[in-house]
Amino acid sequence: MDFNESNATEAVLDSFSKIEDKRLKQIMNSLITHLHQVVKEVEPTEDEWMKAIMFLTKTGQKCDDRRQEFILLSDVLGVSMLLDAINNRKSKDETETTVLGPFHAPSPTVTNGENIAKSVVGDNCIVSGNIMNTDKNPISGASIEVWQSGPDGLYDVQKDGDVVDLRATLSSLKDGSYLFRTVKPQYYPIPVDGPVGDLLNNLDRHPYRPAHIHFMVKADGYKDLVTHVFIDGDKYLESDTVFAVKKSLIRQLDEGFDEDNNQKCYNLNFDIIMEKN
Amino acid sequence: MDFNESNATEAVLDSFSKIEDKRLKQIMNSLITHLHQVVKEVEPTEDEWMKAIMFLTKTGQKCDDRRQEFILLSDVLGVSMLLDAINNRKSKDETETTVLGPFHAPSPTVTNGENIAKSVVGDNCIVSGNIMNTDKNPISGASIEVWQSGPDGLYDVQKDGDVVDLRATLSSLKDGSYLFRTVKPQYYPIPVDGPVGDLLNNLDRHPYRPAHIHFMVKADGYKDLVTHVFIDGDKYLESDTVFAVKKSLIRQLDEGFDEDNNQKCYNLNFDIIMEKN
Repeated sequence: MDFNESNATEAVLDSFSKIEDKRLKQIMNSLITHLHQVVKEVEPTEDEWMKAIMFLTKTGQKCDDRRQEFILLSDVLGVSMLLDAINNRKSKDETETTVLGPFHAPSPTVTNGENIAKSVVGDNCIVSGNIMNTDKNPISGASIEVWQSGPDGLYDVQKDGDVVDLRATLSSLKDGSYLFRTVKPQYYPIPVDGPVGDLLNNLDRHPYRPAHIHFMVKADGYKDLVTHVFIDGDKYLESDTVFAVKKSLIRQLDEGFDEDNNQKCYNLNFDIIMEKN
Repeated sequence: MDFNESNATEAVLDSFSKIEDKRLKQIMNSLITHLHQVVKEVEPTEDEWMKAIMFLTKTGQKCDDRRQEFILLSDVLGVSMLLDAINNRKSKDETETTVLGPFHAPSPTVTNGENIAKSVVGDNCIVSGNIMNTDKNPISGASIEVWQSGPDGLYDVQKDGDVVDLRATLSSLKDGSYLFRTVKPQYYPIPVDGPVGDLLNNLDRHPYRPAHIHFMVKADGYKDLVTHVFIDGDKYLESDTVFAVKKSLIRQLDEGFDEDNNQKCYNLNFDIIMEKN
């Protein structure tokens, strides 16, 4: 029997009959069923199909060591956050997770109190909090990796040269507390000079993410936690282009004074509750 | 309300609310609905998701001026043939269509009778037939573009250098007939040195296509026709890795004699019925 509209999906699923890896077979079956369903619903013309082919091609070709355009695509289509929700179903009151994003990179180790803004200048900010378990007991020696963009909305990896700035790894102290100095984060657009930027433009969507600092926290006996702290009042909290805002992760930025450096600063408090393994 | 498993798809569809292009909106709605459905059904781990990201990245990066790995992916997943079926619903008894494939390229014009195998050597073959309309009346002056692989299973564009061989454009004569000399086509594997080859390997599928010659026929007042002629008896007719075989396109290869060149040859007859615009 010829391959036709009504037996097409079955024919492709049949071609998977010899796959021994059950998981792979499950994934391929679901993927093909839905991919064919899209084609049947939408009935793309040859031109539209070629546009899709070229979009995917350009997206792959935009990727390099410092840029991952397919992760960006996954982010703006809500796939990354959906995956995050599925893989991190909250069991109690541990801190909620959010996307890793495309800007994670190795970072230098710093001591508590240090300023992680090495060359970037901005509004001074002290970020502090406590790492604890779900019983509110402190977790000491947790590895706390943080990274953020500067007031220009750029991460270090988006700039020329091999500058490393506004990223660091520190450890929680005996009482579970941590503290680092930095500059106030600012809302920023995701990179729009590639196919994903063109797509957002065609979809009449803005490319902005509300101000945030990324956290990746690891401690023995606890599940790794990837999250952000967001700043209350940011104009893009309600329309984050990667859908990553959770209300429980929004914190107030308070005006304060940095006694050690005798200067005005903002204070941002972010306690983190880890879930046992 | 936070983005979560139950409202994720709705949240992304809501982000399309400002799209003015109704067709684009329809496509994106269908795509996102099914893409999210796959994620919900399969519940990929972060590792599996990253494997998918890297597969798509490598597929894009394998593409260049002479290689289109995403078309190949569309082909082996049955998407190209499904699209072909949707865009070429047969209305009467015109010749059936099949995939364009990734090897179409500009070709030299030849006269009827000419040998299109310029440097490739193989079993001599005369391909001939008549171009006609659905009332069986001849169509003269139709443009007939043909391309095929040689006995080594390779198209010219897969070889080093800028050699052009086994591809040509000729015109049907006053009586609608056409004839060209070539070599017998052979079954061959699609290119397997890229991500799509790895995928087929993981899916425990062979990469072969049964022997065929591509045809693209155009005539004033008729719909462009993209099709193949397949050779009866080929061992891969039942399992073409791109699902492109249609029974109506299979022809017998008869042993014969080429009087003009005083040598044995195969004869392949392929009449083509064009559909009015």
